[in-house]
This record gives sequence, C-alpha cells and structure tokens, in this order.
Amino acid sequence: MKNPAPLPVAHDPLLFTPGPLTTSLSVKHAMLHDAGSWHFEFNAKVCWIREQLLDVAGLSVSPDWEAILLQGSGTFGIEAVFATCVPPSGKVAVLANGAYGERAVQMLVHSQINHIALRTSEDTPCSPGDLESLLCRDRDITHVFVVHCETTSGILNPIQEIGAVARKHHAVFIVDAMSSFGGIPIDFEACGIDYLVSSANKCLEGVPGFCFVFARRSGLLACEGWARSLSLDLLAQLKGFEKNGQFRYTPPTHSLLAFEQALHELMIEGGVGGRGDRYRRNHETLIAGMSAIGLRSYLRPEVQSPIITSFHYPDNPAFNFADFYRRLAGRGFLIYPGKISQIDLFRIGTIGRIFEADIRSLIAAIADILDRPASVIGAIRAAKIK
Amino acid sequence: MKNPAPLPVAHDPLLFTPGPLTTSLSVKHAMLHDAGSWHFEFNAKVCWIREQLLDVAGLSVSPDWEAILLQGSGTFGIEAVFATCVPPSGKVAVLANGAYGERAVQMLVHSQINHIALRTSEDTPCSPGDLESLLCRDRDITHVFVVHCETTSGILNPIQEIGAVARKHHAVFIVDAMSSFGGIPIDFEACGIDYLVSSANKCLEGVPGFCFVFARRSGLLACEGWARSLSLDLLAQLKGFEKNGQFRYTPPTHSLLAFEQALHELMIEGGVGGRGDRYRRNHETLIAGMSAIGLRSYLRPEVQSPIITSFHYPDNPAFNFADFYRRLAGRGFLIYPGKISQIDLFRIGTIGRIFEADIRSLIAAIADILDRPASVIGAIRAAKIK
Repeated sequence: MKNPAPLPVAHDPLLFTPGPLTTSLSVKHAMLHDAGSWHFEFNAKVCWIREQLLDVAGLSVSPDWEAILLQGSGTFGIEAVFATCVPPSGKVAVLANGAYGERAVQMLVHSQINHIALRTSEDTPCSPGDLESLLCRDRDITHVFVVHCETTSGILNPIQEIGAVARKHHAVFIVDAMSSFGGIPIDFEACGIDYLVSSANKCLEGVPGFCFVFARRSGLLACEGWARSLSLDLLAQLKGFEKNGQFRYTPPTHSLLAFEQALHELMIEGGVGGRGDRYRRNHETLIAGMSAIGLRSYLRPEVQSPIITSFHYPDNPAFNFADFYRRLAGRGFLIYPGKISQIDLFRIGTIGRIFEADIRSLIAAIADILDRPASVIGAIRAAKIK
Repeated sequence: MKNPAPLPVAHDPLLFTPGPLTTSLSVKHAMLHDAGSWHFEFNAKVCWIREQLLDVAGLSVSPDWEAILLQGSGTFGIEAVFATCVPPSGKVAVLANGAYGERAVQMLVHSQINHIALRTSEDTPCSPGDLESLLCRDRDITHVFVVHCETTSGILNPIQEIGAVARKHHAVFIVDAMSSFGGIPIDFEACGIDYLVSSANKCLEGVPGFCFVFARRSGLLACEGWARSLSLDLLAQLKGFEKNGQFRYTPPTHSLLAFEQALHELMIEGGVGGRGDRYRRNHETLIAGMSAIGLRSYLRPEVQSPIITSFHYPDNPAFNFADFYRRLAGRGFLIYPGKISQIDLFRIGTIGRIFEADIRSLIAAIADILDRPASVIGAIRAAKIK
C-alpha cells in the first residue's frame, strides 16, 4: 500500500545542514530580550562566554590562550586571522581538498598575501607527507592552514599529523574547525594549534551572527601593526575586550544571548564528549538507514566525519534533485545540495538539535519519496534498522 | 516628600542608545524560528528585504540602485565600500567631526588607501566650503566620505550641500547614514549619493547582525577587481545575491527574520515619515524635560539631530557619571556615556521602540536621582512640560 500524502508540517522544518542548524527553543527564547551593548551586565555575559569557550576547548588552565569573538560569519574569522597574523613577508601554505580550502586561497589572493595551495582530491585527506616535502622545499612558508572537517564532502583532515609537520618546521598552524569544534574533541596542544576558528551556529548550537578565534596570546600580541583591515583586526578586537569588556563595534547582542544559553545546554549534555556521542549516533543511524534503502555514501568510512555526509544520487536516471529537495522540504526536512562539481551528490548534516528519531523520520520520508517498499519504511520507523 | 526607592524592574531596561536599541516584542518573536540559509523560502525573504529597503530609500523606481546586505556591524559595511569601490589609484577625502569620521580614517590607513581628513570641531558641521577648496586644490581626490548623523555628539552634517560639491568635482560620494537612515528622510538624488551605508539595528528597529549598502549598480559593477578583502567584497556579495538569491557566506538568519518583521512595522507606522515624526517628538520631549530640570544640551538646536543628544553634566562637582548611570540602570533606563574627550557629557538616544511616555519616565527618574523637587517631577510625569 502506498503511504498517504503527507500533511503540511506545523513546525519549522528540521535542518539537516552544516549550519545554520536547528537550535533548541530555549536557545531561541533567549533572544526575546534587548541588551545594551555598552551595559555592564551584557559585558559580563560576553566575558563569561569568552571564558566558557576556553573551557569547552580545554584551554582554561593555560593563561596563554584567548577566545576572541568577531562579528560576521566564520569566513570573517578565517580572514581576520590571515589579515592580522601573517606578516608582510609571510607566506601561507593552504592544504585544500574542498571549497573551504579554496576559499582560504581566495582570501589570500584578495589580501595580496603570498601563499601556495597543496591540493588533494575531494575524497582524500590532506597529506602531512606532502606538506613535509613542501616545507622542506619552500623555506619562505611561515603559516600552514587546513580545514578540519571539510563540509564540501564531509571529510576529516588529520590535523594532529599536519600540526606536527608544521611545528617541526616552526610554521604557525591555523585550523578552520568551523563545523567540528564542539562536536569532535580537539587537543590543541597535541595538534600544535596556534589559531583555531569556529562559529556560533555549528556544533555549539547557537544562532549565526558571530564567529570566534582561539589564539595564543603571546603569538597574537606579536602581530602588532600587520592588520590589513580595521574590521577584521583580531588583535585590536582582543585589546577592545581587555580595555572595557566590549566589542569594538556593535555586537550581535541577541546572538550572544542565545549563545550564552547554548553553552549552558552544551554543559547539560555533557560537554563536547556528550554532544559528540549524540552526533555520532545520529551519523551511524543515518548511514545504516540510507544503506538499508540503497543509498551509498561518497567517502570511505575511515575519513568520514560525523558532521555531514555526502550521498550519491539514487541509481535512477529520472532522479531530479530539485524535485526531491522540494518534496522533502514539504514534509519538514531540509537537506543540503552537493558541492562537489564532478559527481552528483547531496548532503545530510547530523549536527544541531536533532536526534536519532529525527534521522529515522528523515530516512523514512526519503524512502517514501523514492518509492521504497512500505516494509522497509516501517522497519526504519520502528528502529529495527540501527 | 522624597519619592520612595524604586522597585526592581520586571521588564528589560529601555535602551536610550543609538543602537542596538529597544525593539518591539513582535520583532524579537520573529527570531523563534530556525531558517535554512540555502532554502528557497528564506531566499525569498532576503529578496523581499532587499527590495523593501530600496522602497524605504525611495529608490525602487530606479533600476540602477541595489541594496546589498552584509554580515557584521555597520563598520563592516563602511569598510566594504572603501575596500571594494576605491581603485588602487584612488584617494578619499574624509570629512570628520567625531569618532565615526575618525574610524573611517583608521580603515583607510589599515587598507593602505590614500586619503586626507578634513576636520571640524565636534560641535561644528562638516563644511561644504572647505571641501570645495580642498577639491580645487587636490585633484587626486576621487571619493568623498561623510557621516550623516555623527553620534559622537548627535550632530547632523549637511549631506546635500556636501554632495553637491562632490558631484561638481566628479567625486564619488559615500554617506555613513548608520544612525539616521529610516528616521530622517534622505533624498539620494538630491544629495548626489553614490553609496550609503546603514544597519539593521538603528532606525529600522531590527536587531544587530548585518548592515546594508545602497549602491548604484553601474558604479559598483565598474569596481571589478579592486576588492582588498574577500569577506568585505561588496561587488561579489551583490553577484552572490543575483546568482542564487543567497548570501555568499552564512547569513545571520534570525536577524533577517527579525528585520522582515521590523520592515512590516515600519510600514504600519507610516514609513520614514511616520517614524521620523515619532523620533522628533521623542527628541522634543527630551529637550523640554531636561531643560526643565536644569540640564543643558551640548549642540546648538539648528545642528542637532533627533537621533541622539549630548548633555552636559549637572552643575554639581559631586556628580559621578558611573554612579548616575548605575542608578538609572537600576530603574530600567540605560543611557549612553559621552564620547567627546574634551568636555564632560552624557548622551541620550531617542530612537528605537520608545515613545514620549518613556522619555518622560526617564526624565522623571533623572530628576529624582538628581534630587530635583517633587513638584517638577510630577509636572514631567503629568506631561505638563512639553
């Protein structure tokens, strides 16, 4: 028997995206207040958020680390690191295996910062060995940049091994952990990280509006005078917080109130460990369910992140992604298009305020739209496929 | 009889600031939803917002104008104009009579863009005559920048006269209308404006998270290849909207949902005219009330904006601003410190979701804290002082 047509959904669609993502209602409720960006009570919240971020990162015991909040999307944070922390004579090695590595290259082009890209294909992790060769060959390189979880595909890059190579060659190591920070444990010292950038609306489950950069204080203070942009001057931003507890320029006050609540909810969930466990269960449920309805993931399991997963289109020449997307949206599920140019893929994120049951509902909807047998759909709904 | 001590306030403090400011509950309520930044329904909202902004600006009849939204505070929007639209050989004349003019100078220093500052004192409008002399003298100047309402003092600069001089000398005219757009009518054509920047959380009464730039399409398209920053590339941002309706990088989705509602509420109030009338009544109530309790404003009335007003400290050597501020905050009123270095001032904003009755409550609280007679306080509360 064919399932009946779905009723219009009365709730917001669930976002199976790498962020902005579904947040809890309590996080959104925290935005029902207007805060004075100059007021001491708001400054105290900003201060608490900065300290709490260091705690989430496992850096609160070290006095040499700072968490610096910056207005704008995560991209602004990455560009702020380059614009502030690379000296005029510096050169950046960008390890790239997706759109976010390429975006870093574009930034460096715009800022006229010397750089070299070390590319691997989109299904292959960035190579510490190739970096080693490059750094031996090119003595001008002062900085190494890599994306931790490249959401173009969902691949995880080996930041610990890459960091070891960077450290050996005394290069400053910059990590884009936009979509992974808070959902995957990161050992800053073991990875030799100097700068790590992430954003409010990813695994910390806040709303968009600002990003944050973890920086070694001593390293950042040595960057005086290099900033190529006023708005993106990370050192001036730090000095602003230290001078009077304030953002230099108008902060997204409501996003910050939401983030304060989001950090409380992270603690309740057991920190990065607890949250990462949920995301991993989400991911495993997704892989098992999609496999049961005949959909194959793009990456090998050993390089796949639990953050976002790319899937091949179904083996049906009539498959139309736009139509598929719209039908899923009509049932309250928003998925993500593919971003790799050579292969037809779509992507499903497993982060945000979503749970295994939501993943199962999504897969049941996909199965229904793809005309899979009712027995399979029933098994997914009943959690008989794990 | 001394008034009794105030009870703790059960509502959010009212913000008498130039933004972030007090917004309506319905604007904040619009943020109780998570939107997919890639989703067609959200893109349609972004498109509507861009069109509606042109309408608010009186530019919707002209096909040559674009409203470009950009993540971050208003400062990011100003820097985006400089970073994108000044050619490598360009030179900017900055008219400055306050902190925001000086901030523009700092941006140009950071971006290594040639510039010259034309300063007047903080209580004196920028001078079209001096600009005329400068443009006659210095033929390298390609761009002229001025702040419309300089919130450092609250002064209004004569953008129409300045624009006429810029136009006469074929200079591109850039206006920072951060705190005035939406609250004071601006005739773009009469002022000869090429770029105007404002922000979501000012007179349009949205929440912070993004700014917007009005640009002549033909002028902006001619800036291809000049952008000194990827994140702040205004032309690429426009092309992004035109390519797929999306922000290039993660937008502050919740701020945009709030802004959609804020634009509806602007229409209900009668557009810029209706809103401007309320702000002017707020301002007149403020001036009359403060005068009645013996507090003098800093600027001459003919150069004073209805947006924010600077007041001299009371003639009492024991007056302590920090204490005054805290006592007002305790009663639910947040005012703003002064920003002029040479004179002791504090500032009171009259924009945002505040009304004459709120202004009167504020003045009554100030009068009480300053030990003014109960009869004066009663007269203010009873609206006998207009």
